[in-house]
This record gives sequence, C-alpha cells and structure tokens, in this order.
Amino acid sequence: MKKKDNSRLVFFNNKFVKEKDAKISIYDSALMFGDMVFEMTRSFNKKQFMLKEHIERLFTGLKILKINIPYTKKELIKICNETVKKNEPFFDNDDEHRLMINVSRGPLGIYAPVFDNKLESTVIVADFPLKWTVKNLAGFFDTGVNSIIPSQRSIPATLMDPKIKNRSRMWYQMANIEVSNYKGENNFALLIDPDGFITEGTGHNFFMIKNNTIISPQGRNILRGITRDYIFKLAKQLKIKCIEKNIEPFDVYDSDECFITGTPFCILPSTSLNGIKINNGKVGNITHRLLKKWSKNVGFDIVKQIKKWANEDYSKKKSIITPYQFKKK
Amino acid sequence: MKKKDNSRLVFFNNKFVKEKDAKISIYDSALMFGDMVFEMTRSFNKKQFMLKEHIERLFTGLKILKINIPYTKKELIKICNETVKKNEPFFDNDDEHRLMINVSRGPLGIYAPVFDNKLESTVIVADFPLKWTVKNLAGFFDTGVNSIIPSQRSIPATLMDPKIKNRSRMWYQMANIEVSNYKGENNFALLIDPDGFITEGTGHNFFMIKNNTIISPQGRNILRGITRDYIFKLAKQLKIKCIEKNIEPFDVYDSDECFITGTPFCILPSTSLNGIKINNGKVGNITHRLLKKWSKNVGFDIVKQIKKWANEDYSKKKSIITPYQFKKK
Amino acid sequence: MKKKDNSRLVFFNNKFVKEKDAKISIYDSALMFGDMVFEMTRSFNKKQFMLKEHIERLFTGLKILKINIPYTKKELIKICNETVKKNEPFFDNDDEHRLMINVSRGPLGIYAPVFDNKLESTVIVADFPLKWTVKNLAGFFDTGVNSIIPSQRSIPATLMDPKIKNRSRMWYQMANIEVSNYKGENNFALLIDPDGFITEGTGHNFFMIKNNTIISPQGRNILRGITRDYIFKLAKQLKIKCIEKNIEPFDVYDSDECFITGTPFCILPSTSLNGIKINNGKVGNITHRLLKKWSKNVGFDIVKQIKKWANEDYSKKKSIITPYQFKKK
Amino acid sequence: MKKKDNSRLVFFNNKFVKEKDAKISIYDSALMFGDMVFEMTRSFNKKQFMLKEHIERLFTGLKILKINIPYTKKELIKICNETVKKNEPFFDNDDEHRLMINVSRGPLGIYAPVFDNKLESTVIVADFPLKWTVKNLAGFFDTGVNSIIPSQRSIPATLMDPKIKNRSRMWYQMANIEVSNYKGENNFALLIDPDGFITEGTGHNFFMIKNNTIISPQGRNILRGITRDYIFKLAKQLKIKCIEKNIEPFDVYDSDECFITGTPFCILPSTSLNGIKINNGKVGNITHRLLKKWSKNVGFDIVKQIKKWANEDYSKKKSIITPYQFKKK
Amino acid sequence: MKKKDNSRLVFFNNKFVKEKDAKISIYDSALMFGDMVFEMTRSFNKKQFMLKEHIERLFTGLKILKINIPYTKKELIKICNETVKKNEPFFDNDDEHRLMINVSRGPLGIYAPVFDNKLESTVIVADFPLKWTVKNLAGFFDTGVNSIIPSQRSIPATLMDPKIKNRSRMWYQMANIEVSNYKGENNFALLIDPDGFITEGTGHNFFMIKNNTIISPQGRNILRGITRDYIFKLAKQLKIKCIEKNIEPFDVYDSDECFITGTPFCILPSTSLNGIKINNGKVGNITHRLLKKWSKNVGFDIVKQIKKWANEDYSKKKSIITPYQFKKK
Amino acid sequence: MKKKDNSRLVFFNNKFVKEKDAKISIYDSALMFGDMVFEMTRSFNKKQFMLKEHIERLFTGLKILKINIPYTKKELIKICNETVKKNEPFFDNDDEHRLMINVSRGPLGIYAPVFDNKLESTVIVADFPLKWTVKNLAGFFDTGVNSIIPSQRSIPATLMDPKIKNRSRMWYQMANIEVSNYKGENNFALLIDPDGFITEGTGHNFFMIKNNTIISPQGRNILRGITRDYIFKLAKQLKIKCIEKNIEPFDVYDSDECFITGTPFCILPSTSLNGIKINNGKVGNITHRLLKKWSKNVGFDIVKQIKKWANEDYSKKKSIITPYQFKKK
Repeated sequence: MKKKDNSRLVFFNNKFVKEKDAKISIYDSALMFGDMVFEMTRSFNKKQFMLKEHIERLFTGLKILKINIPYTKKELIKICNETVKKNEPFFDNDDEHRLMINVSRGPLGIYAPVFDNKLESTVIVADFPLKWTVKNLAGFFDTGVNSIIPSQRSIPATLMDPKIKNRSRMWYQMANIEVSNYKGENNFALLIDPDGFITEGTGHNFFMIKNNTIISPQGRNILRGITRDYIFKLAKQLKIKCIEKNIEPFDVYDSDECFITGTPFCILPSTSLNGIKINNGKVGNITHRLLKKWSKNVGFDIVKQIKKWANEDYSKKKSIITPYQFKKK
Repeated sequence: MKKKDNSRLVFFNNKFVKEKDAKISIYDSALMFGDMVFEMTRSFNKKQFMLKEHIERLFTGLKILKINIPYTKKELIKICNETVKKNEPFFDNDDEHRLMINVSRGPLGIYAPVFDNKLESTVIVADFPLKWTVKNLAGFFDTGVNSIIPSQRSIPATLMDPKIKNRSRMWYQMANIEVSNYKGENNFALLIDPDGFITEGTGHNFFMIKNNTIISPQGRNILRGITRDYIFKLAKQLKIKCIEKNIEPFDVYDSDECFITGTPFCILPSTSLNGIKINNGKVGNITHRLLKKWSKNVGFDIVKQIKKWANEDYSKKKSIITPYQFKKK
Repeated sequence: MKKKDNSRLVFFNNKFVKEKDAKISIYDSALMFGDMVFEMTRSFNKKQFMLKEHIERLFTGLKILKINIPYTKKELIKICNETVKKNEPFFDNDDEHRLMINVSRGPLGIYAPVFDNKLESTVIVADFPLKWTVKNLAGFFDTGVNSIIPSQRSIPATLMDPKIKNRSRMWYQMANIEVSNYKGENNFALLIDPDGFITEGTGHNFFMIKNNTIISPQGRNILRGITRDYIFKLAKQLKIKCIEKNIEPFDVYDSDECFITGTPFCILPSTSLNGIKINNGKVGNITHRLLKKWSKNVGFDIVKQIKKWANEDYSKKKSIITPYQFKKK
Repeated sequence: MKKKDNSRLVFFNNKFVKEKDAKISIYDSALMFGDMVFEMTRSFNKKQFMLKEHIERLFTGLKILKINIPYTKKELIKICNETVKKNEPFFDNDDEHRLMINVSRGPLGIYAPVFDNKLESTVIVADFPLKWTVKNLAGFFDTGVNSIIPSQRSIPATLMDPKIKNRSRMWYQMANIEVSNYKGENNFALLIDPDGFITEGTGHNFFMIKNNTIISPQGRNILRGITRDYIFKLAKQLKIKCIEKNIEPFDVYDSDECFITGTPFCILPSTSLNGIKINNGKVGNITHRLLKKWSKNVGFDIVKQIKKWANEDYSKKKSIITPYQFKKK
Repeated sequence: MKKKDNSRLVFFNNKFVKEKDAKISIYDSALMFGDMVFEMTRSFNKKQFMLKEHIERLFTGLKILKINIPYTKKELIKICNETVKKNEPFFDNDDEHRLMINVSRGPLGIYAPVFDNKLESTVIVADFPLKWTVKNLAGFFDTGVNSIIPSQRSIPATLMDPKIKNRSRMWYQMANIEVSNYKGENNFALLIDPDGFITEGTGHNFFMIKNNTIISPQGRNILRGITRDYIFKLAKQLKIKCIEKNIEPFDVYDSDECFITGTPFCILPSTSLNGIKINNGKVGNITHRLLKKWSKNVGFDIVKQIKKWANEDYSKKKSIITPYQFKKK
Repeated sequence: MKKKDNSRLVFFNNKFVKEKDAKISIYDSALMFGDMVFEMTRSFNKKQFMLKEHIERLFTGLKILKINIPYTKKELIKICNETVKKNEPFFDNDDEHRLMINVSRGPLGIYAPVFDNKLESTVIVADFPLKWTVKNLAGFFDTGVNSIIPSQRSIPATLMDPKIKNRSRMWYQMANIEVSNYKGENNFALLIDPDGFITEGTGHNFFMIKNNTIISPQGRNILRGITRDYIFKLAKQLKIKCIEKNIEPFDVYDSDECFITGTPFCILPSTSLNGIKINNGKVGNITHRLLKKWSKNVGFDIVKQIKKWANEDYSKKKSIITPYQFKKK
C-alpha cells in the first residue's frame, strides 16, 4: 500500500530533502541567468527508460557550459536509481516515475558571503508521478493535436543552442501564450526557425510521414530528443525508412500523416496544422504501428495506461496549455 | 551599530524569510523556463534611486508575459521600502542597499498537487550590500575596462526581447565564458547583434563619444537601462548632446572616448576595444564630467565610495568574470 | 432619386462598361503574374480626396514596372472625375464614391492571336459605394480593433516592394487566414518584417503614440499610405509631433495609444495587441483629436457617417475577416 | 479540317464561354490579391501529360490557401478532358493542347451586391495551342540559353511559398525586366535566393550535370515542377544518378552541362551562365540523351515538332522576353 | 617645360624609386591577403585637397588592422608633399596630382629568409596625372551615368568593413564584370546590401535629392568618402539640407535628381537607375549648383578642366568599365 | 651539394627572375582589388602532389573572374615543373618544394601609359622550401591545436566565393588578429558562417569524427581544399565512411576526434574547441590512421619529416599566429 503522497524526497546536493523543500536560492546562476542544464525521464513498468542516454546528453551540455558536476556519469545514474527507490513507497502501484535532473553552476561568486563562501554546483534529482504530466493528454491519442505555427520563431542554435537542454526558455512560454489565443482545445505550438523550417514544439519533437518514409527535422535548431532517437530505432525494427530532413510547412500540409514525440507521452498524433487537416484529420497507420511496437517492446499498452490515468471523460479533454496559467486580464 | 550579517530578510510572497531561505521551488516556471522578470536597484546614501522607473519597467515585462502580480505598482514600491527598512540594521553605516525584485508565474499547473493545488505568482524582494557587486571594480575607474566582442551574438529582440528584463540569459554566461579565455584582466564582454551593431554587455549598456556628442546604441536589441536613461538626463544638465544611434565596432575604434553604465557602478570608462586603445587608453573628459555631475546630484563622490569598499590594492584588481566560476577542467 | 443600383459603369480601356462586365482576360499579365498597379480612393461629401497624390503614386509604380499607360496624369484624373459623374445617379445621396484604379501591362505577347495581335495596357476605373467597405467597421470606432501579429511576415521591399501598390498580395490573404483562427471578433492582422519591426496591416498603416509623439513605422517595408501621409498633416495642424521610426512589438505594448489608418475608414483605434490591452483597452485621446480635426477639415463627422451606414446593431459587429470567405472545411 | 481559330471555348464556372470572354471580375480575389492557384499542362500527340499530377498539386495549393473548389479531383480531370474535346475542332492537326487551369477564391465579400450576393470560387479551364508558347524557342535547342542571375532574388518559401503555384508573381516580371537590359538574345533569368542558392527561372526549373550525376536544386524555394519530376523518372530509365542538392553559381560554372525544364518545351540546354560558357558553350551529352528518351517515350521527336512550328529562320530566333512587352521609354 | 613622362618617382619604404619599379613582393601580406590600407587623393591647381582627412582615415584603418606604420601623420603628410614636389617636373602644366598611398603589414613571417629576416611594413606614395582616371568620364557631366544594381551585393561591414579603405575588393571587380554585360555605354555599378539598401558604387558614393533635401546612404556598408564629406560642407554653404538616410531603389526611382561622387571626378550626375530615367534623364539643378560652388571654392571650373583633358569627341565617350579589361572569351 | 640559398628563381610572365625581384606593380589589379587567383602546392620526395587538381581549380577561378591566362593547363603544369627543376640546386636534399602560383588580371587600363600601353595578365610561379611553413607546427602533431571560433564570421559564398582561391582575404587576417588575443600558444582560428555552421580556418579545412564516420563541412562557404579531397580518398582506402555535412560547434564538442588539413602540413589534430577538450585532449585514432596511410602512400613518414625540420624543442613550439606580426602597441 502506498504511503503518504506528500512525502516524496528529492536528491539535493548530496542530501535528500522533502519535495516541498526542493528549492534553489535566488542567488543561484540557475535563477539569475536560466543557466541550468536538465533532463526529464520516465519509467516503463517502474524501470527508467534510456537513462544512460539522458545522462550522456546532460554531461555534454555541462561540458559546453563549463558547469562543474562533482559526480561521474555512473555515480549520477546511481543517484537517480536511489532516488526512485526512496520514493517508490509514495507512488501508486500503477504509477511511473518521472525524474527531473537539474544541474546549475551554483550561486554567483558575489553572493559567496550568503553561503559561508562555499560555492558549489547545484545538483538535483526529483521524482514525481508521470501521470501528472500526461493524464490531460489521453484524448489526443484518438483525435490528434492541432499544431499551430505561432509568430514566435525558434532561437537558432548559433544564438543559443537548443541541443543543450537548458532552462533559458522564456520564448517557449511566449509561444505557448500565443497559441492559447487560438480557437480550439487541442492546439500545440510547433515552431519554425527564421529560415522557415519546422523545428520543434515547446517540449516535443515533430515527425511527418510521406510515401512511407518517416521524416524528422534535421538536428539543428531543435533538442535532439531521446524519444526522437527511439523513433529511429522503432522504425528500423519495423523496417520503415526514417530520415532527417529540412521540413517546411508546405511539406506538412502535403504529408500523409504526422505525430509528435515527447518523453512523457511517447507519441501523439498531429492530425492538422494550423487547422488544416492532414490525412483528413485521422490518426495515421504508421503512427499506430509505432505505438504498438513500442508498447510491445516495453511489455504493456502505453496508450491504455495513460487513458487509465485520465480521470475525466475524454470528450472533455483539456488543453495542455491550461496548466501554464495564461490568465485573461 | 550593525547587527549580525547573516540576518538579512527577504520579502517572499507576503512573508519575510531569512536570506538563506529565499529559494524558489524547482517546479516554478522561473526554474523550468527562465520565465521570470526582475529588477535590481541601488541606493545612494541609503535612498533608493529611480525605484519608480524600475517598477514601471517590471510591470511592462509582466504585462507582455501575462504574468500576474497581486500588487499595484504603489504597493510594490511600499514593499521595497519596507524591505530596506527591515534590513537596514544588518547593513554597515557606509553600505548601500541593492534590491533584487523577482516576479515569476509560479509553479506550473501540473505540479499543483505539491502546492496543495494553490498556484500563485512568485514575488520576491531581496536586499543586500551593494559593495559585494562593486568592490572588485574599483580599479577600473582609473584604468578603464577592455571591451571584447565575443563570437556569441546578442539574441535579437524579435526572438526574445531583452527589453523585458528576464532570466533566460544563459547566452550572457556563454559570452562571459568566451571572454574569460582572453588574455588580460580587465575584459568585459560587449556584444554585437547579427546585423553587426553594438548592443550591450552582459549586464551593462554602452556609450561612446564622438565630436562631443554622446552616442548610445538604439534601444532595440538591448535592455533599455535605467542608468542609461539617467545618462541622457545628466547630459542635458551638462548641455552635452546625447543621442541614440546604431554603432558599429568601427565607430568605437574611431571614437574619442567610451564608457559603460550599470546600476551598481553607474559609469565605468572603457579605454579599449578588443585590445585596441581608444583615446590612447586614457579615461575621457566627458566620462569624468558625467561622474562628477552624478556625484554632485547625489551628494557624494560615487567613485570614492566604491574605492573605499575595495579591500584590496587597486593594482591587484580582479576581473569581474572570476566570480562566475568558469573553471578550467 | 437614385437610379437602379446595378447600373454602375466602369471605365475600361477608353470605354464605359457595366460593372458586372468589368472583367480582365485570363491572358492578361494582371492575372498571370499579379502584375498590376492600382489605387483605391474615397470621397468626402462626394469630392475625391487627395486624388492627385493617388495618381502620382500610381505613376511611380508604373514607371518602375515599365508598364505603359496611354494617359498623362492629368488625363487620368479627368477620367476618374468623369467616372464619378457618370455613376453619381446610381449612388444614394449619402453615399461616398470609392474608386478602384487598375493598370496592368495587358495580355502577354504569346496570346496575341486572341486579341487580333493588338496588345495594350489594361486601364480600369471603377466606382462603388464606400459604405460596402466600411459598414461592418462602425463598432470598432468605440471598441478599437485587436491587432494580431501572425506567423506570416511582411515580404521585405528588397524582394517585392510594397511601396509599389501592386496586386501580388497572396501573402496578405495568408495572414488574414491565420488571423481568422484566433479567438475574438475584432482581430486585424498586423505584420512584422523579418527584422521584427512592425510594418502594416493587410490593407492599413499603423501608428502608436508615446509621450505625446505620434510614431509610424519607417516607410520601408510598407505601403506609404496616402491616409498615412495625411496623419502627418493633421498632426502638424494640431501641433503634435509626428515621426517615422522603427517600431517593435515591445514599443506597442509600452505605448500610450495606437490606431490604424486606411483610405475607407480613415482612422480606427487599436486598443490591444495580441490581446494585451493598450491604454487599458480604451480609445486614446490623440486618436479622438485626429478624427475630430479630420472631420472638421472635411466638414462633417466621419465616424457618424459610417455608423449611419452600419445597418446592424453595433454589439453584433462582424469581423472584417469574414468577407474574405475563409471557410471551415 | 480545322474550324475557325477564334472559336475556342473556355470552361468557366460550369459553363463554356468564348476564349475572348474568359475574363475575371475586377472584384475577384484573383485580381485583388493575386490570390489564385493554377496549373498549365501540355499534351503529347493530343494526349494530356501527367494531368493527374498537375491536379494533385493544384488541390494541395487550394487546401493550404483555404480556397474552396466545388469539384473532386476526378471531376476536374473530367472537365479538363471535356474542354480538350470541345476545342479539338479548332486546333490544327499537328497542334498540341496547352491547358490553363485557374482557381480563385472568387469575388470578395464586400462586393457581394454586384454578384447578387452569390459568392463562389472561380474555376477556369482554358485550352490553347502549345505552339504559341514554344515556337520562338526552337533555336535554343541547338544554341542553348544563357542563364542570367539578376539582382532580383527569389522570395523564400517562408514568406510566400512558390511550391503553391500561385499568381502573385510580379517579382518574376521584375526579374524579366532586368534580364531584358542585358546584351544578347538568348538570356533567361535564373534566380538565386537570399542564401545564394540557385532556385528557378521565371517559369522553368534548373538542372546541372557534374561527373555524370544530374543535380537539381532542393525543392525549397522553387516550384516543384511536374517536368522536373519527370526528369527524375527519365534519369532512372537511363540509369543516370539524379539528385536534389543545393546548387551555387560556382557549381554551375564548374559543371559539365546544364539544362532547364518547363512543361511547354520539356528541356532546353543552358550553355552559359552570365555569359560564361559551360561545356565550351555546347549542348551536353546527357541533355541529348534525356530529350531522346523522352521523345521515345511519347512516340515522336519533341524537338522536331517544335522546330516545325517555328515559322522563322532559326538564326533569327527571338528572345522569350520580348513577348512580355518591356518597352523602352 | 615638362620633363620626360616616364621619369615619375614613387616613395617606397623611405626611398624614391622609378614608377615602373614600384612593385610589391609576392610574399607581402598585401598580395597574400589583400591586407593593405590605402588612400587616393587629388589636387586642385596642383594643391592637394583634404590631404589631412585622407591621412586620418588611413591611420584609423591601420590601427584597426594592427598594421604598424613607422611615421606619424605629420611625417606622412610631409612625405606626400615631397613626392608631389619631386614629380612636378614630369607633369604637364595643366596636370593635377593624384596620389596613391599604400600601407601594408609587409612580408609574412615565414618568408623572413628572403628578406634577410628584416620584416617591416610596406609604405608607398605614388603620384600620377589625374587625367588618366577622368578623361574618359568627361561626357558624363552632360549625359549623366546610368546606375545599374547588379546581383553582387555589398559585403556588409560586419563581415569586412568597407569603412577601412582596403584592398580586398575582388567583389568590386565581380560587380564591374556583371555591369559590363549590360546594354549601353554609360553604366556604373551601384550596389545594394543584403538589406536592400543602396550602398555605393565600386569606387564612388551615391546621393539623391528629394524635395530639395540631399540624401546619402547611412555611413554603414560604404566607404565614408572624403568627397562625400565635402558634399555636406558644400550643401551647408549653399544652405541646402543634406542628410544621411537609408535609401532603397524605390526612393531613387522616386527622386528628383541623383549624382555620384568620387575623388577624381568630384561629382557626376546619375540620370537613370537600371535604365529608368530620373528627372526625365536630365542633369538636376542641385547637381549643377554643387559643381559650380565647388569650382568657385577651388578657383576654376572643375568640369571644364576634365573636358579639356578628354582627347576624344564626347559623343564617343567610353565606359569606365572598359579599362578593367573584361574580355570576351 | 646545395648552391646558395638566395638564388631561387621565380617564373614571372615568361621570364625567370630572382626571388627578391618577384614583385607586382602597385598598379596591378592584384594590388588594387586583391583581384588575383592563386594556388599553393607541395611535393613529397620532391614530386609535386596533385598538381593537376591545383591547376584545374585555378582555371575555374580564372574563368569565373574573366581573367585571361595565356597558357593552357598543360603549359602551366610544364612551367611549374620547370620552375622546380631550376630551383632544385638551391634546395637542401631533404627539402620539399612549395609552389606559389599567382595569376592576376594585370595592371588596370588607366595605368597603361606606365606599361607602354601593353596590358597583360600577371602570371607567377614561385618555389620555396616547404619547411619554412611547417617547422613551427611540428609540436602540434602530438598536442593538437586548439580551434578558436572568433567573432569574425566567414564571408558567405554568395557575397565573395571562397571556392575561388582568391587574394581578397583581409578578413582572414582580422580573424587571426582576434585569435592572437587569446590565452594559449596553440590557437588556430576556426570560422563559422552567419548561419552558425563551421566553415574553415584561415588556411585550412576542418574534419570531425563521430561514431567512426569522418565528417567535413559542406563545400559551400569554404575553399574546397585539395588536401580535403585527398582525405576522402584516404578514407575510402581505409574503408572509413567520409561525408560532407553541416557541422555546428555543438557537434564538434560532442565529437570523438577532430583534425584540420592543409597542403603544407597535411593533417594536424585539433584536440580542443574554444579550450574545451575533445577526446579528453588526446589525438584520435582515425587521425593517426589517416596520417599513417598517407605516409605509406607517399613512401615516408610525413610527420617525422616535419619534426626533423623543426629546429627547436617541441615543448617551446610557437604559435602559427606569430609570423603574421600582430604587434602589441
């Protein structure tokens, strides 16, 4: 039986603290500059998925930003697993573990007095139920999302590289705000870069299918998602050609089917772009096959699990935007 | 007599907490997206300087980002003043108050359970001694800083507007890292935008003088600094022409003198660009006059105060970069 | 008493034809390439307004595009006046005349056989009641329009110059389509160019007011509207400073009031940008003064006239977008 | 025996009208905004070529522009064939049928009164002899054309997508005007985009050959021509490698041979760029093989047919530019 | 009486050598990288014009490029004057002196053995008759030149700053080559930058007049010409408003008159752009007044002097392009 | 035994002149505009390497720039070989021959009088010991170089094509100057273009290895080096995949190993980017294999030869930058 909900623990600079106390000083470089690298994972059947790949990506980002981390990759993986173990008692039996791994440069030097002159990196591993993130998305497996290209453009990698999974993402929120002004309830932002190429959503990657080839934007002005990488593996297993290529909105309108990918929900169909239907608004065949194969690989039906978590009628599904609290004034 | 140092208090969502406890939840939009608007002020003779202007700018940013703040401008000013008052006992007699005002959207909706489903904006007013920030800069009033144009470009306003004083500034750190690789001890980053125009430093504005006209970059891809605004006022008082204009590196090389401005240090001369001397490497006349006039306006010698704080020999001045801890690996 | 409505005549290559027959061959360069220059005017109290300026602009466009016109400017003005005169009997007493002047290169050379090998420019002057265009806009004089910045960018002048009033404007329609997907009923597209500067709407110019200065985008990636020019004159008459300057969305959010201008409606307040209110959503004072002065100059209340034409309850005002027929599929 | 020339019929919104009467109202969105999608086809031996592909492309453009068409693809193909059949009596025995299919949004809503408040899309299928278009080009099969890169750049797809075959092409005419100012009689515009990549001509696609590989610009800032697609098929039949790749002017200068493609003329050699000879100014071998294979596929000599139509001595060939009537003033 | 023509002397690293021997080693940075700063002047009545301004500009360039020059500004002026004096005997009485001042970094370090390990900057002052440069231009004072905008764009200052008068100007030649392909005999290249703004010719600055205001492009992607500066002075003397402003081709087409400026010829009218006439192809009034005023200032008729030098009939004037030897192949 | 060092001869317009006299007139287009195409080669065991490929590339450049050369490719190869033969007596036994081939348009037309009105292209073939260039680089085979991305961007090919090996390279020197300001002794400039893609160094090409695939930037904004081409051949011989692809700094940070290539030194490892280590700062395995294979192909150890030439202790290696004489002022 599950213990109390509000007892989850967060690894915080070598200690475990209560989730509510997992907080970062206002003098930390993370809060002064959005200067923090992070990862967010999920488990399948309680087992972390591609954790090694997440940690690899994290360390590449830290290296480029010259942020010191006092652990090896192996040690950090061990910390992650330990965190999961510590928290499992507070999770439901049908829960999955979503880890949030944050590493920042720590408090800025001028604030050293506040920290008794001990300045060190901030390393955090939090663990919370995956269902929080996905339960509102359940209905979209059937209807698909409507991708909206807002006025906000992706910041090109040469100005601030999205391939470093970083926390300077105010512009994601600006895109989300724009999209919240659109009619409809299943709108997700899908950005283009200044060259006009499709990049990514504000938290997911994009794929389209044309003539039985799966195509994803080149790995330039996007986060090269771990889930995105997994699609390439699934495609190989299914013997479907899967390539990277510059994609323009025209190509999406002219495509056979589309979907988006993200760690928490794996794959969601995108059945229209700017309200214009793809595949007559129906979920595509290859999308179905990928979800099915993935489910087979992990040993249970991924979609069914999410639908089970959804504690409301699917016909009343809520937009993922809502949680970001863009209130009307 | 001053009370204990480590007793400073921070206004945090309607309560006062200890400085060490002024921390933001890892589930706050500020930490998830760098989605926070802020201001940093200073006092002269313990009196907050242009606080109203800072608050105005803050509210403009909040409005654009649709971040709710549960106070009016007047109320927030009152909170600031109250914070100063509460902390004065823990400040030295010769200290000045540097306020840090942070406002974020608060925790994201999906994390509502952690916060008992009460989601509200995060509003913080911290107060610390100005000397922390400026004591290492004292020597530069005599030698000037060397402005370095790094490879990192300013993110243009159309992608993420720097006129909103926001916390998605990882790219400032990337510029700082680059500049830390240069020879010399007085290097400050000075960015150009993709058009090749001088914009700003990673925390300061830029001015040059040519033929007795003070020129600052157009208010486009920069933060329109409160101190920058004050230079225009000082120039008016001194009857010196002061204008906004696109500035290119060539113009700086060809200028008569240069300086940078920032709230904590007011004005610092910049006596070279990329190691090439301006005005033969000497502090310029108009720079001197502006500092003098400002000192007169506030009733004491601004530079002298900072030099007094500097607790080391000026010849051993340290780079402002050092505090950011870009360690060699 | 007015004669029959459907008897309006259109000047068409030296003849007058029925309005329904004012049609251009599918082999005309106008239809093959959107290769046509045009003007649209209006009258006040039946008198054409700034007709000379419209004709001047038309001829500049024709010269650049090397389109031959077999009339002098004077002759064309005469033709315009004659067209008005011929049509007046079919207009209501309270109607105003809206002229549409189209000039194209004529049929392409390869289609010469269809035209008995006589290829000549196509010159058209049509005349229809202004109220058609403006009656749906009446309510916006009170509420203001909501300007929306769509993903579609202005085509910069160096690629296709909007200062030539031309008919290759499919991208205006693409912007209109985008805006029709937004919530709300008073949305008007307001474009930015790839530099991020506000340009124009899809048929109107933009103005903002800050600190009692009226500011309009520089005359670069916009049509330099005749009405826009007249605002500068009105401002002079009212002794209000009026300048051209690059405007960014930030500036609009931070402005005191905004309005848009167009030949048919003169001035409409814009009380919000992307749903964010300017001046707390109220029509501004200078906007009022400009409309009042203009009305005085022409001898009657411009707004009142339009409201009179509006044959529906203002509370049920329809979007200007509707007429373009972007149907849901 | 052929009937009278001037009796050709045009399908126009469900009726057949005389060619001379195939005209579009000045209030149609096609003429107001260049807001029309179109196709132009040709026959070989009176049989329409790749008509299905043309219709597919047309419908994709209509979908993106939200232009309603009251026919299915099949119905429109039937209409096309019917139009050909109706016109065949007025064609010479050796004529080929060139169809022009135009679809626009129809008259704008504000002009509804003119059309008895019935607003519908405009759908046109015209049919005229192919020889009109190609007879002046016959000589170029032997000499090749000289491609000229004008100052006018291609409008990038992100601003107005050329992959939608649309009528907002004033900038094509501006490029044509520029090229008409060059010395020589066989100049054809060949545009580059702002990135400096070769795109297309003002009505044709471009190919170069290097080391026995046929290369065509990536399908981004170009119309993806039906003829261009067919070259890929021909190359496959001939077992020649044929790829899409970014091409720069340098690559063309350094190529082994070049040609252009267009529906009416199929393939024309381009033997120089900006007056600098490719392959010493001679038509290349692969160009010859492609034309030969195509001729074989359709059952007659394509080039010979065009030369037969040419009613003038090849040595007096006229520029394709001439027909556009860029008169000297 | 003049001495022998072929006896002119060139100052070359502290010695005077024969003009034919004024040559730079192939191992010099000037020839390896186009890494040389230069100035070219002229005299009026044998007196050097604005020599000090030329020397100032030279030294700014040298400073930015970190090229050492072993002379002070004063010393270099003295060298210039001495060079003129030494050469005057070989000049005609009616000749003017055109100086060419070249300064390069000298031979590269790896070639030190060739130079006995003595590496020093290369400093050259040559002096030749101005008439060589201008005699072919005489006719253009009456007819004006036709400015042509080629495909070649100006390299923006942020990539290589034209405000440093440098010798990496292969792209000027590429523009000249393009223009040599145009019909007509009075064509001069006039470049635009990637933003579409008029910059400069390949050796001259540009001015237009609109409503009695003289306008020259902003001093960004251009050489800020000494002659250009002098136009501002002349305008002041004539009480004509003269400003810097971004100019687009549209503005030139729409202007009242245009001219170009260069040290050797002072002012030449530009009576058309891309073959489209400005001011009906006539030389403008303000152009005339500027030339007249300048002539008055220097004490003789500038144009008359050049026409006198022209040893051919004006009607047979040759293009300035010809001398660059772009041969047909 | 070697004859006197200072007796090397240079082929200069059909004559052989002493190396010290190999100089170009200041009136030559090469010095006026940096308007010269060139090649620099090397020998292995006294035998010229890929000379034919160098000559091919030279002729392509000459053709595009319309520079006449009075020799066929074969004749120029013969001249090269003759030059080597003539100079061999003045080379050490262990020397290799580095040829410099320069071709310019010759003196400008206006200076014809200086050259007795005979204007012809300038054609030069010089020959000097390879060791001059490489002896300072020996140590880098063990330590690798540190690639530095300066603020200076590559000029994109569309503005001035680096694929033409030309002498308008002042911007290379500007990049070198920047890099000379960095801490460290093994810094080499590595440029990015305005798109943020890695291009080339100021005289070398770049390669990275990821997952056993060798990757080099696409042949766009770079010189397509002859040595670069040879790497593709070597890779084929070693059965290692070698491709062209856009590379971003992120990709380099994330790579397994990196190296640079240039004719004189063949291959040098690059063990860090901006001071951030690749492969923990160690020379990579594939780099070793390529060097070994190349050595085998030419019959001796390439690296050993260079190290032998190095007459100083490797630990005191000097930067390649030093020779360019960027002096401190």
